[in-house]
Amino acid sequence: MLKPRECVRNLSRYRPPLARRTGLRLDFNENTTSCSPRVLGQLRSLTAEDLARYPEREPLEQLVAAHLGLRADQVLLTNGVDEAIHLLCAAYLADGDEALIPVPAFAMYAISAAAAGARVIQVPADRDFRFPLDRILESLTDRTRLIAIANPNNPTGTVAAEADLLAIAQRAPNAAVLIDEAYFDFYGQTMMSFIESVPNLFVARTFSKAYGLAGLRVGILAGAAEQISMLKAVASPYNVNAVALACLPSALADQDYLTSYVAAVKQQRDRLEHQLQALGIPCWPSQANFVLANFGPQRSVVVQGMRDRSILVRDRSSDPGCDGCIRITAGTRPQMDAALAALREIIAHPAEVSR
Amino acid sequence: MLKPRECVRNLSRYRPPLARRTGLRLDFNENTTSCSPRVLGQLRSLTAEDLARYPEREPLEQLVAAHLGLRADQVLLTNGVDEAIHLLCAAYLADGDEALIPVPAFAMYAISAAAAGARVIQVPADRDFRFPLDRILESLTDRTRLIAIANPNNPTGTVAAEADLLAIAQRAPNAAVLIDEAYFDFYGQTMMSFIESVPNLFVARTFSKAYGLAGLRVGILAGAAEQISMLKAVASPYNVNAVALACLPSALADQDYLTSYVAAVKQQRDRLEHQLQALGIPCWPSQANFVLANFGPQRSVVVQGMRDRSILVRDRSSDPGCDGCIRITAGTRPQMDAALAALREIIAHPAEVSR
Repeated sequence: MLKPRECVRNLSRYRPPLARRTGLRLDFNENTTSCSPRVLGQLRSLTAEDLARYPEREPLEQLVAAHLGLRADQVLLTNGVDEAIHLLCAAYLADGDEALIPVPAFAMYAISAAAAGARVIQVPADRDFRFPLDRILESLTDRTRLIAIANPNNPTGTVAAEADLLAIAQRAPNAAVLIDEAYFDFYGQTMMSFIESVPNLFVARTFSKAYGLAGLRVGILAGAAEQISMLKAVASPYNVNAVALACLPSALADQDYLTSYVAAVKQQRDRLEHQLQALGIPCWPSQANFVLANFGPQRSVVVQGMRDRSILVRDRSSDPGCDGCIRITAGTRPQMDAALAALREIIAHPAEVSR
Repeated sequence: MLKPRECVRNLSRYRPPLARRTGLRLDFNENTTSCSPRVLGQLRSLTAEDLARYPEREPLEQLVAAHLGLRADQVLLTNGVDEAIHLLCAAYLADGDEALIPVPAFAMYAISAAAAGARVIQVPADRDFRFPLDRILESLTDRTRLIAIANPNNPTGTVAAEADLLAIAQRAPNAAVLIDEAYFDFYGQTMMSFIESVPNLFVARTFSKAYGLAGLRVGILAGAAEQISMLKAVASPYNVNAVALACLPSALADQDYLTSYVAAVKQQRDRLEHQLQALGIPCWPSQANFVLANFGPQRSVVVQGMRDRSILVRDRSSDPGCDGCIRITAGTRPQMDAALAALREIIAHPAEVSR
């Protein structure tokens, strides 16, 4: 009888909703408005022939590399950061290797590492989700072949210091060290300048968050040319679709759109934090476009109450150290007005939430 | 020092052109016109918010399953057939397993299998590229865990009989048997009805060829629900982009477009075969939208001469058993007029081709 590899049979499922996410979407850290109007204009100028042609990735890798101050041979465009994670796992992890992941973390690191046959070593965050540098260094072994760190982290919004990340890359020269900078635009600090000098460092970026292009599926994986060349051999030459590739120049060109959206969201994120604290809800200072807040035993009432009001937030209570926690995406001022009004109502009258 | 797995370091590169494919594209078996105008209309009706939202795959899997007479749990939409191949290799192949591939074949089968650590066993076609059933059956071992067969085959256009494919699936119950029906629309015969009864059978389809949507990257992998469920755990939940998902209903609904394009291409494919033979160029009867033709020592002159005239054809001479061969996509009547006129000129005056 046909059986997948044991590591695949034992895989835990990541089951985000794949249908009917309607209303105010504060659950996936998307851009809560849309995207640059220039991108939409570019989309609408595409012809039927553009759809019929296999996508041509290379010119866009040149463009993105120039934008990042890198060479094209240091950059691979991917089908979202998910594919970047998957390719790193496929390339570096064999059965019995170890993947080290500080947790709580984005779920796909552990899934892709386990699917590649690796043993997933979860390193719990320090108090208040501080970056567990010492515990990571203590957990390194001869079999450590991948270390995946989101910075800012998801779902906490906390950050790791540059010196800590460099120390890890240096102490684990045989491991691929992925710094996932999906939320870079809201933070502003990056490891990208170390791509040239740190041979086992990879930095991922995405157009799914600040740029507002989650639907197009395009991520960036940067790394040493020698490594990227081998990852390009594993990836499909047509991994990124032609619509995404056609839209990238417009997205990159409209930095005004990005700057203005990011500034608005950071202001509202800080406001959300203050208002939650004023409501007596503990939360953690975030450098991303979301806030993790601990609603304790009211957690499920809040998620349901928000859903009753067509506002989607993300229950993160099953993540390590996140009991009672909900992650709320920061959006525009009117969106946060609506979310905060709903939260206040629910907290004041929890018994009125549908079950 | 960081090193990918040995199987990745040794991977041969598949390097199709990823930039500047301009002119008459008869090199990748795309739809040579475009796609249904309904699809373009759908594309242009997308909003900026549609781009900002993560794609929602499930409703489209229901639609595609209904179109194929299957249940949604038997269908996985993929980022092109390339991803379907990659997922099967990742799920079923461990280091030292064997992947059996009748050749010549689509290059990604061997690349994805080798990238997963498998030993790739190439089984040469019989005379005139006939399907090598006996040799495949003789090559089965305890380690055979994947068998990848395109039907119609690429680059030859030849086909395997239903009974032969069933015999292979039956004799290799522990192997995933992939029948890649990328060119189904030009052939009309399918193994899809056996998905329900043959537990190790997978059938792949694509929207990249007859439907004219190669740029959107969407393929279909059908298989037993038990297997598809595990492949869905390995795949990213957001593997297919939102534009492709939004356009699929329009593509499936416009069967008139498909039927009419397919009929025109089949006529021109047969005409191309006859005209090549009239020119003294041996070729093989094709059931797909292309013809493999043996130009012998004139091969490189023909490829270059066509390129000089802005007509792209695909040199397949390094494929097993394909010395001297070029693959030419069949298109519309005017396109084939142009291609045939160019071929006649080049063959009559080979010395005038640029070097």
